[in-house]
Order: sequence, then C-alpha cells, then structure tokens
Amino acid sequence: MKLKPLADRVVLKMVEAEETTKGGIILTGAAKEKPEVAEVIEVGPGGVVDGKEVVMTVKAGDKVITSKYSGTQVKIDGVEYTIVRQGDILAIVE
Amino acid sequence: MKLKPLADRVVLKMVEAEETTKGGIILTGAAKEKPEVAEVIEVGPGGVVDGKEVVMTVKAGDKVITSKYSGTQVKIDGVEYTIVRQGDILAIVE
Amino acid sequence: MKLKPLADRVVLKMVEAEETTKGGIILTGAAKEKPEVAEVIEVGPGGVVDGKEVVMTVKAGDKVITSKYSGTQVKIDGVEYTIVRQGDILAIVE
Amino acid sequence: MKLKPLADRVVLKMVEAEETTKGGIILTGAAKEKPEVAEVIEVGPGGVVDGKEVVMTVKAGDKVITSKYSGTQVKIDGVEYTIVRQGDILAIVE
Amino acid sequence: MKLKPLADRVVLKMVEAEETTKGGIILTGAAKEKPEVAEVIEVGPGGVVDGKEVVMTVKAGDKVITSKYSGTQVKIDGVEYTIVRQGDILAIVE
Amino acid sequence: MKLKPLADRVVLKMVEAEETTKGGIILTGAAKEKPEVAEVIEVGPGGVVDGKEVVMTVKAGDKVITSKYSGTQVKIDGVEYTIVRQGDILAIVE
Amino acid sequence: MKLKPLADRVVLKMVEAEETTKGGIILTGAAKEKPEVAEVIEVGPGGVVDGKEVVMTVKAGDKVITSKYSGTQVKIDGVEYTIVRQGDILAIVE
Repeated sequence: MKLKPLADRVVLKMVEAEETTKGGIILTGAAKEKPEVAEVIEVGPGGVVDGKEVVMTVKAGDKVITSKYSGTQVKIDGVEYTIVRQGDILAIVE
Repeated sequence: MKLKPLADRVVLKMVEAEETTKGGIILTGAAKEKPEVAEVIEVGPGGVVDGKEVVMTVKAGDKVITSKYSGTQVKIDGVEYTIVRQGDILAIVE
Repeated sequence: MKLKPLADRVVLKMVEAEETTKGGIILTGAAKEKPEVAEVIEVGPGGVVDGKEVVMTVKAGDKVITSKYSGTQVKIDGVEYTIVRQGDILAIVE
Repeated sequence: MKLKPLADRVVLKMVEAEETTKGGIILTGAAKEKPEVAEVIEVGPGGVVDGKEVVMTVKAGDKVITSKYSGTQVKIDGVEYTIVRQGDILAIVE
Repeated sequence: MKLKPLADRVVLKMVEAEETTKGGIILTGAAKEKPEVAEVIEVGPGGVVDGKEVVMTVKAGDKVITSKYSGTQVKIDGVEYTIVRQGDILAIVE
Repeated sequence: MKLKPLADRVVLKMVEAEETTKGGIILTGAAKEKPEVAEVIEVGPGGVVDGKEVVMTVKAGDKVITSKYSGTQVKIDGVEYTIVRQGDILAIVE
Repeated sequence: MKLKPLADRVVLKMVEAEETTKGGIILTGAAKEKPEVAEVIEVGPGGVVDGKEVVMTVKAGDKVITSKYSGTQVKIDGVEYTIVRQGDILAIVE
C-alpha cells in the first residue's frame, strides 16, 4: 500500500538513526531519545488550500524537522508514518 | 436511503478489513484495532464554501485516511457512516 | 405563527420516524434513540453573510442530517424547531 | 431617553406575552418560562462592519428570535432592553 | 494632561448621574448601581485598522452604552477614563 | 546597545514619575502604584504586517498608554523596556 | 548538518554571553539568568506564507530579541537551536 497525500500534506517517516557510541556499541531508535529528524516519503500536489495557493517546496528524500506534536500518525503495512501540512515543516536538514 | 453530502463534504464508511493471521484465522473488524482506512461512498459538489472555491479531488471508491476524531457519525439503515469535510482527508491509500 | 429565517439560516423539525420492529410493534420517537434526521421547514434568503455570498441549496421538505449540537432550539405554538446555518447541514437523505 | 444603535446593532425588548391558561388565569412574564420572542425597537444604520458591508433586513416592530445568551442587557428609564448584532437574530416570527 | 486616542479608539468617562429620589434626597454615583451610560470625551482619527477602513461615527459629548467589561480603565490627573474601540459602543442614548 | 523594533513594533520605557506628596516627600516609582504612562523610545518601520499595510503614527518621545499586560519586557544594559505592537497603544497623553 | 529554514522561518542560537563580574570572575550562560538575546544563524526564503507575501528583513549575524516561549527547540550535532517565524522577532539589538 502507498499513501498519496492530498493538498498541502506531506507523508513523513521518522529517521531511525544508527549511532555508534564511543565504546563502539550501535544504538538503534528505541535505546535513544526520540529522533528529531524525519524523511519526506510522499508530497501532496499543493494548489489552493483554504482559499490560498500553496506551492510545495519539499521533495521526497528531504530530511526535515517539524513542530513537535504536529501531524497524524498512521500505520500502513506495519510501518508508522506521520502526515503533516507542509506549513508544519520548520526546516530541511542538509 | 442514500446520503447526498452538501458543499465540500464526503460520506465515508470504515473498511472492515479481513485479515488472515499467521495461523490462518480470519479476524474481522471487532477483534482487531480500529481500522484506520475508510472508503469514500459519496462526494459533495464542492463549490464556494466559506467564501472559498473548493474543488473535490476524491471520488467514490477511494480508500482514504482522515484526521482522527474528525467528522460526524451517522447511522442510516443500520450502517454507520462518517461525514467529513474533504479538507479532513489526509491521504489516499493506493 | 410562522418562522422566517434570516440570512443563511434554516428552520428544521426533527422527524418522528415510525418504525415497525420485527415483532410488528410500532415505535414512535420517544421509545427510540434520538432520531438523526430532520425535515427542512423554512429556508432563509441567503445572500452576503459575514462578507461572503451564500447560495441556499436546501429546500423545504428536504430530509437532512446536521452536526450534532449545532443550532438553537425554539418552541413555537408547542412545536419544537431547530434553527441552524445551512453550513451546519451535512447531507440530504434521499 | 432613546437608544440609537450603532453599525449592525439592533435594540430588542422581550415580549411580555399574556396568556390565558385553561382555567382562565392570565399569566404574565414572571410566572412563565422566559419568553423566547423579542420585538425590534430600534435598528442601526448598517454599513461597513469589520470591513464587511452589512445591509439591515429587520425593522422596528418585527418579532424576532435570537440565539440564547447573545447581546447585552441595558436598563433605560426602568425598561430592560437587549442590544444584539443583526447576525444574532435567527428568524422573524410572523 | 489630555488623552488623544489612536486609530478607532474612543475615550469615555462614566456619567455620574445625579438623581432625586421620591423623598428628595440626591444620590450620586457611589450610592447607586453602577451607571450604564458614558460620555464620549475624545475620538480617535479612524482610518485603516487591522487592514479595514473604519469611519468614526461617534463624537465628543455623545452619551453612549458599551459592552460590559470592554475597554481599558486609565486614571489621568485623578479622573478615571475608559478607552474602548468604537466597535464596542453599542448605542447612543438620546 | 540599542533596540531596533521590527515591523509594527514599538519600544517603550515606563515613565518613572517623580511626585511630591503634600508633606513634600518625593516618591519615585517603587513607592507608588505602577505608573500607567510609557515613553516611546524606538518605532519600527511599519509596512506590510500579516498581509496588512501598517502606517506608524507614534514617534519617539510620545507619552502613551497601552493595554495592560500587552507586550514583552526585555532588559538591556540594566534598563527595562516593553516592546508592543502599535495596535496595543491606546492613546497619546498630551 | 545544516538547517535550511522554510518559508518565513529563522534559525536562532541563544547568545552565550561571557561577562566579567566586578571581582573579575567570568560567568558563562549556566551561571546567569537566561540570556535574552539570540543570534540569527539561517533565514528562510520568505515568499507567500498563509496567502500573504512575507519579505525577510533579518539576516544571518543579527542579534535579536524574540517573544518569550515562541519557537521550537531542536538539537543538531549537540548544539541547541530555536526555529521561529520572523514575525516572532521583536527587535534587532545593535
């Protein structure tokens, strides 16, 4: 199954960063603080949203930071996604 | 009886997914978590809503995901429907 | 007395549905769950409401479903009516 | 003293309906439920209110129904009036 | 000192009505209920306020009624004034 | 250090009025009620704010009255300032 | 990693002011009150935000003051940043 977001919505997936501690142990997501960076998976078409023209400026593959608590979590085929409005994306991480 | 939604409203019906567990038992809706996917049953005509032109982009038969808690539940002829604004639909599931 | 709604308002009257149970007993409104369907009694003229042009699309006699809790109840000559804005009507039941 | 309402405001006076009970006793306002109908006493000039053109459609002498709790009560020369915006008037009773 | 209100603001002073009771005693403000009528002392220039053109329609000397609790109390040279937006003035008392 | 306010913002400094009591003692700010008058120190450039053109009408040196609790307090070089939007200034004291 | 803010957003970093007390001891951030001044690190492109044209007027290197509690804290490579909308920046400190 694939999610096609509507209007100015964007489908995100939290980045499960692997990190090597100083002692060489690899920590996965659960053992660390909640990761703050998400990857853009799908981008809506934009267009007129609430009577205002919205141009989409993020694209699939971008790493982004969103306002905390924004968006709706959904689970598709066992994978958890977050759907946000583009306006809830604060910055792209490069 | 048939529901004809007004303006930018959409009539949805929750999808009663049948799923086969590893052991082969078929689970229907009641034995599982609340399904997250709904099917579009009827689509309003769109037009000017709160002074803003709304074009309808979903169509009957689409499988969609909505914001949790959005919409109004109604029961017609023993079947439960949810009526939402198109703007509460987050994504189409393909 | 007759109610002439202003602007985009609509006067509704709850439908006291009669229903025959499997055993043949007729249930009237009081013995059942609150009915969800109302009949349109009078329709306001529409026009510019809060600076936005509203065209009335419902008409007297339509059976409709409204958002729960919307509108104001009034009792005229012993009959209870609900006055709502057209935008609070979700769908027409056909 | 006379109240001249500004902008889209309307001065109302609750209708102290006299009613004859079956036994012939006349009940005035205090002995009954709060009356739901008010009479229009004065109507503001309308015009641009909050940047939107408002045309006044009620006139002195109209019997009207308002949203419960809307408006401001004022007492002038011992008489109690309610000042509401025209948009808070739901319907004219004919 | 003199207050020059900005934009759509109006400086009011509560009217300390003197009233003669039936027995001939003169009651000043403190011995009575809070007076409901205020006098317009200064009127702002109007103009574009929050992007909307506001024309001032009250003038110094007008006796007016305002929404309860609206405005800001200020004390200048021992005299208490209330500064409100013109839109908070409900009616002129003539 | 100097504060240059952005957009429609204005930097104010509370006026530390000196007052001679009847007995000749001079009271400074701390021994009195919170002063209600502030002096304009810096004025932002105005321009388009939230999509609306704002023209600045106050100027440095003006004594003004603001809505209570509006604005943000900041301390620069040991001096306390309040930064408000021009729309929070109620009146100029002359 | 580098943060590229979207739309009218600005990436800030609190200024860790070093201060020499009278006795010559240098105090860093943790030993003092929360600093009130932040440095602009990255500035979004501006453009149409919520249907309104926003021109960016701050630039990297500016020292600014923001409304308390505005913005979202993020930690990138161990450094804490705050992402705000330009409209939450009150003044530039020169």
